[in-house]
Amino acid sequence: MIIVLNKNSAETGRLPIEGFLNANHINYRYVGKLHAFVLPKYQQTEVFEQFEGIETIIPINTPYQLASKSYKNQTSFQVNDISVGEGLFNVMAGPCSVENEDQIFATAEFLSNLGVKFLRGGAYKPRTSPYSFRGLETEGLKLLHKAAKAYNMNVVTELLDGSLLDEVATYADIIQVGSRNMHNFHLLDQLGKINKPILLKRGFQAKAVEWLLAAEYIMSGGNEQIILCERGIRSFDPSSRNVIDLGVVPIIKELSHLPIIVDPSHGTGAASRVTPASLAAAAIGADGVLIEVHPDPSRALSDSEQAISFDEFSNLLNKTKMLLNALGKQTDTESTVLNSGRL
Amino acid sequence: MIIVLNKNSAETGRLPIEGFLNANHINYRYVGKLHAFVLPKYQQTEVFEQFEGIETIIPINTPYQLASKSYKNQTSFQVNDISVGEGLFNVMAGPCSVENEDQIFATAEFLSNLGVKFLRGGAYKPRTSPYSFRGLETEGLKLLHKAAKAYNMNVVTELLDGSLLDEVATYADIIQVGSRNMHNFHLLDQLGKINKPILLKRGFQAKAVEWLLAAEYIMSGGNEQIILCERGIRSFDPSSRNVIDLGVVPIIKELSHLPIIVDPSHGTGAASRVTPASLAAAAIGADGVLIEVHPDPSRALSDSEQAISFDEFSNLLNKTKMLLNALGKQTDTESTVLNSGRL
Amino acid sequence: MIIVLNKNSAETGRLPIEGFLNANHINYRYVGKLHAFVLPKYQQTEVFEQFEGIETIIPINTPYQLASKSYKNQTSFQVNDISVGEGLFNVMAGPCSVENEDQIFATAEFLSNLGVKFLRGGAYKPRTSPYSFRGLETEGLKLLHKAAKAYNMNVVTELLDGSLLDEVATYADIIQVGSRNMHNFHLLDQLGKINKPILLKRGFQAKAVEWLLAAEYIMSGGNEQIILCERGIRSFDPSSRNVIDLGVVPIIKELSHLPIIVDPSHGTGAASRVTPASLAAAAIGADGVLIEVHPDPSRALSDSEQAISFDEFSNLLNKTKMLLNALGKQTDTESTVLNSGRL
Amino acid sequence: MIIVLNKNSAETGRLPIEGFLNANHINYRYVGKLHAFVLPKYQQTEVFEQFEGIETIIPINTPYQLASKSYKNQTSFQVNDISVGEGLFNVMAGPCSVENEDQIFATAEFLSNLGVKFLRGGAYKPRTSPYSFRGLETEGLKLLHKAAKAYNMNVVTELLDGSLLDEVATYADIIQVGSRNMHNFHLLDQLGKINKPILLKRGFQAKAVEWLLAAEYIMSGGNEQIILCERGIRSFDPSSRNVIDLGVVPIIKELSHLPIIVDPSHGTGAASRVTPASLAAAAIGADGVLIEVHPDPSRALSDSEQAISFDEFSNLLNKTKMLLNALGKQTDTESTVLNSGRL
Repeated sequence: MIIVLNKNSAETGRLPIEGFLNANHINYRYVGKLHAFVLPKYQQTEVFEQFEGIETIIPINTPYQLASKSYKNQTSFQVNDISVGEGLFNVMAGPCSVENEDQIFATAEFLSNLGVKFLRGGAYKPRTSPYSFRGLETEGLKLLHKAAKAYNMNVVTELLDGSLLDEVATYADIIQVGSRNMHNFHLLDQLGKINKPILLKRGFQAKAVEWLLAAEYIMSGGNEQIILCERGIRSFDPSSRNVIDLGVVPIIKELSHLPIIVDPSHGTGAASRVTPASLAAAAIGADGVLIEVHPDPSRALSDSEQAISFDEFSNLLNKTKMLLNALGKQTDTESTVLNSGRL
Repeated sequence: MIIVLNKNSAETGRLPIEGFLNANHINYRYVGKLHAFVLPKYQQTEVFEQFEGIETIIPINTPYQLASKSYKNQTSFQVNDISVGEGLFNVMAGPCSVENEDQIFATAEFLSNLGVKFLRGGAYKPRTSPYSFRGLETEGLKLLHKAAKAYNMNVVTELLDGSLLDEVATYADIIQVGSRNMHNFHLLDQLGKINKPILLKRGFQAKAVEWLLAAEYIMSGGNEQIILCERGIRSFDPSSRNVIDLGVVPIIKELSHLPIIVDPSHGTGAASRVTPASLAAAAIGADGVLIEVHPDPSRALSDSEQAISFDEFSNLLNKTKMLLNALGKQTDTESTVLNSGRL
Repeated sequence: MIIVLNKNSAETGRLPIEGFLNANHINYRYVGKLHAFVLPKYQQTEVFEQFEGIETIIPINTPYQLASKSYKNQTSFQVNDISVGEGLFNVMAGPCSVENEDQIFATAEFLSNLGVKFLRGGAYKPRTSPYSFRGLETEGLKLLHKAAKAYNMNVVTELLDGSLLDEVATYADIIQVGSRNMHNFHLLDQLGKINKPILLKRGFQAKAVEWLLAAEYIMSGGNEQIILCERGIRSFDPSSRNVIDLGVVPIIKELSHLPIIVDPSHGTGAASRVTPASLAAAAIGADGVLIEVHPDPSRALSDSEQAISFDEFSNLLNKTKMLLNALGKQTDTESTVLNSGRL
Repeated sequence: MIIVLNKNSAETGRLPIEGFLNANHINYRYVGKLHAFVLPKYQQTEVFEQFEGIETIIPINTPYQLASKSYKNQTSFQVNDISVGEGLFNVMAGPCSVENEDQIFATAEFLSNLGVKFLRGGAYKPRTSPYSFRGLETEGLKLLHKAAKAYNMNVVTELLDGSLLDEVATYADIIQVGSRNMHNFHLLDQLGKINKPILLKRGFQAKAVEWLLAAEYIMSGGNEQIILCERGIRSFDPSSRNVIDLGVVPIIKELSHLPIIVDPSHGTGAASRVTPASLAAAAIGADGVLIEVHPDPSRALSDSEQAISFDEFSNLLNKTKMLLNALGKQTDTESTVLNSGRL
């Protein structure tokens, strides 16, 4: 159950309720930025009708509360000038790892010419083996940021550990939480306290409810700018690296107000399947895609088998636009706000 | 490895090769209808170049042979006048179970008015509990056939057990093998010997390779008219009945020449998700869909939570047409061949 | 809910209840051999207190009814002279496939010398590929039966398809239903009508509830002689052929009265792990094991990597006896009833 | 491949090899504490035979190197006076969460009276929901340590985040890495640099190879004191919280030299199944168990359904001793070294 206070009377309204909750040993959390009490296991709304300063009382019977569709119909926000969650299909692309200046600048130039507004790239890479390439780290962050800003793009990059938060937040417009960190509750707590959009990948073994509870960790800290990202789940079939769970998109749309995008690169694990999977993501109602693109996929230092080339990306984008157009939608690459506003 | 004999000299060509294989204890099967030897674990093509009457020798390094893309680029065939596997998107629809004459006739009339050419319906139903409704059996088959033929449609229905083959084959234009029977090798052997198209659903726990080996059972008996059907796999997440594995569509397209359709009704397990999943199936390259439609889903005797209504189906079909049109394709409902040819 | 009639008044008691159930459109099945009504979705026991001839009314809130622990505390029966389900740990062993007379006789002789009372062996083999060895079929059944009877053992062998039931029942003392057939409801129906013990393997993707419902199919036909057999489930980890779900043993013991044994050969897929897994099966409370033993595992025609040698089996049996002894139990190999009775 | 230098000549031997590796762009890591080069993708041992100061060159064809059985036959170490990895079966027990002084002291007293040498307890708890009890944190660590030391026991407790390492290391004798952190590579790196035993739980979705690679992260930092802990994997069956993968024990024994224990509490998720699963763990060859025990399980603040009572634990320990005794082994509770040495 969520009790939302009137924004203006939140400070006066808060204390009596808190007193009541404490006196009755009711488990709650007060989320100041949202001036809302979350009562995760309480359902008797009528008890609170006597209190003043309450805007609304929302009964919710799921473990996630603030992430629930009952709390809100749709979350939307701006990343610089680009809207997320308002119906535009967001296209985020770039290499798995930032490898050097030429690579990331060539990619940024190519993508920005197609109107892509989000440049993704890894500087700190989570790797299953300690002996694999782990990214250029600080140097990679700087190169990524420099390339993105040279081409008026937004930076999407992964945060591996809480100790790196300040550094990553300096260079990122959207902070990515990787699949293996979706259950890193300490990190999620930290991200709840900052004012920066979060791209929250689904754990490759996470139930939809667990994913929304991970978002709840962030929201209950006061940060509502969350984009969920499906990136494939683990299954019994070795014929692909992951099973891309496109069916989770309409499930999330039913359960939550948070935007959800799809990563068809990790989701399929094979360059040849990225375009069909992107089209399917658009068709099933996703709010965007996150694509691994590389100037020369065969020489990529990580994920070379699933990165697509520039030509393949152009083709993917064209088909995605045509498909969305047939369904009455469009990508954010067709928006001219960002470039026209800044050039 | 497959050795294909010249159609005209198959009979004379066969014996010397068979002698050689037997003498050398090489595991093989001769598939008469395809005048082809299958040597599942043999790779030395040059040994056979000396023999006469050989059209082609195809090295294949997968366990499935005849189902492999190396053997053939694309399988296509006609079900009465409707082509399968030639680029048209086949739409198959109808109730989970045939319940009574009114229900199946109303459904057939509605669907045929939209141009749908395939009427699906269950007469013998596989049920997890022995106490659930198991279908109208023979009576259901007759009703289904009668309704389909009254509206110039083709019948798609499930064969539960080999002992029912003659009966089901009498009424079906396409015989469906259910998910739980994909591993029923005895049944697959029987279906290899008949001349009737088979809709082979994927086992809900079957690897892509196992699915193609199930098709291989049928093909190695001489029956090449197979349509694969993805219907959702079992996962760890209880938020949906199944995980619809749309990503298997491009995988199958890479590995095999067999047409593949998608069942978004079982795949998602929820009526609200059938339309988005159908669109995604079309977008990712499937050759068709198999949809559960019911005049009054809330009163359906089985699968009521995943059947869609007539209105929902109309909407689904319209959107699917628009989406396919944007990608340069079309559904078989737009084809007028069947009706014009017969009316 | 189950209504058990007094054995003596079952015939007179049955009709009034049946009339009531029909009049009220209550879903039920009358199982004659158990003189019991099963009402799968009905819970109001008091309604039936008025009827005569009722021995007991058992409320059951699980989908399985006759397989439930509420219906019965423990199932036990005799296979010839050997008791199953009465506390003895049943040891069943033999080759994956019957290959020839020497192989099966050598195995039977070896096992019977150790006191083993059940000889397993495959005559009809389910194979993922149509090109693999599928067993000696009728010839295999005859050899298996001949060897078993020569050494005073019971035959355990698999039934692949309902059309083979008469033949298999002629030679088998226990009919095995393989993992892939656990969902073959038509076959289960047939097995409910015979009077022969059934070894019901768990589907490699079957939930415990589904497994008990498969047993329910058999029991609701009147056949109560069922032994469940865990044989490994499919997981995401390729480090073993299957994940042996030993934890399902205490789960089944809580839910059902049926005896449950473990197949560590398929469960682990590796000869080196069969002995530790057998010991663990005994430790966790299983009622027996089913082991693949071969005179020369490296030359076995099927499952060669998981069959153990005679020496390994002797060692396994010794350790199992010691372990069970420490827990106050013993194997059926220590029983002298069968041999003494016949020698 | 691993090149181990002679301990005494490691410093002189190191430089020429490093020069060669750098000049040839061969990926390597030098692990100073083990005076060993790890070359994860290199197999040509003969190249290095020319260099001086080499003790041995070990070819290894798995992704994990230092964690491999090829590198070492068996890891063992002392935790204070208690040996791990030397054949004794280590019994670790205690509550899921430290709740208050009475609870943890009562538990420590009870366990130490039975000879248990390891007291487990959670102070920082990973919880799926942000609203669940997250532990007493620092206060919990202090209580746990105080209770353990009062009864001459060793502390086993979880480290949730790298920022807490110094604090946890102050109070813990063994630092536990939880299932969700097994893939937290940043944390694993940190643990490689300390000199404290690590209990590395398996990710609930981790393949055996990934688990060994997580251990490799720690070992490649120089810390060899690792105990693996199986705690159940996620499956498709809701009949238990997890599937306890006991079969992974002999797999790990084949692949690695690291000791492996089992957590039957999380592994089964039900108090009634903890004892049978513990016995099975002992039977299948595990090196110990980690058990949740609580003075009053029904009132536990977390995991109440899987904690066992004092009586149940006594029974579990007795049966485990009898079983191990039958197999020629014993628990560390029978060792008197620790207590006699200190009292």
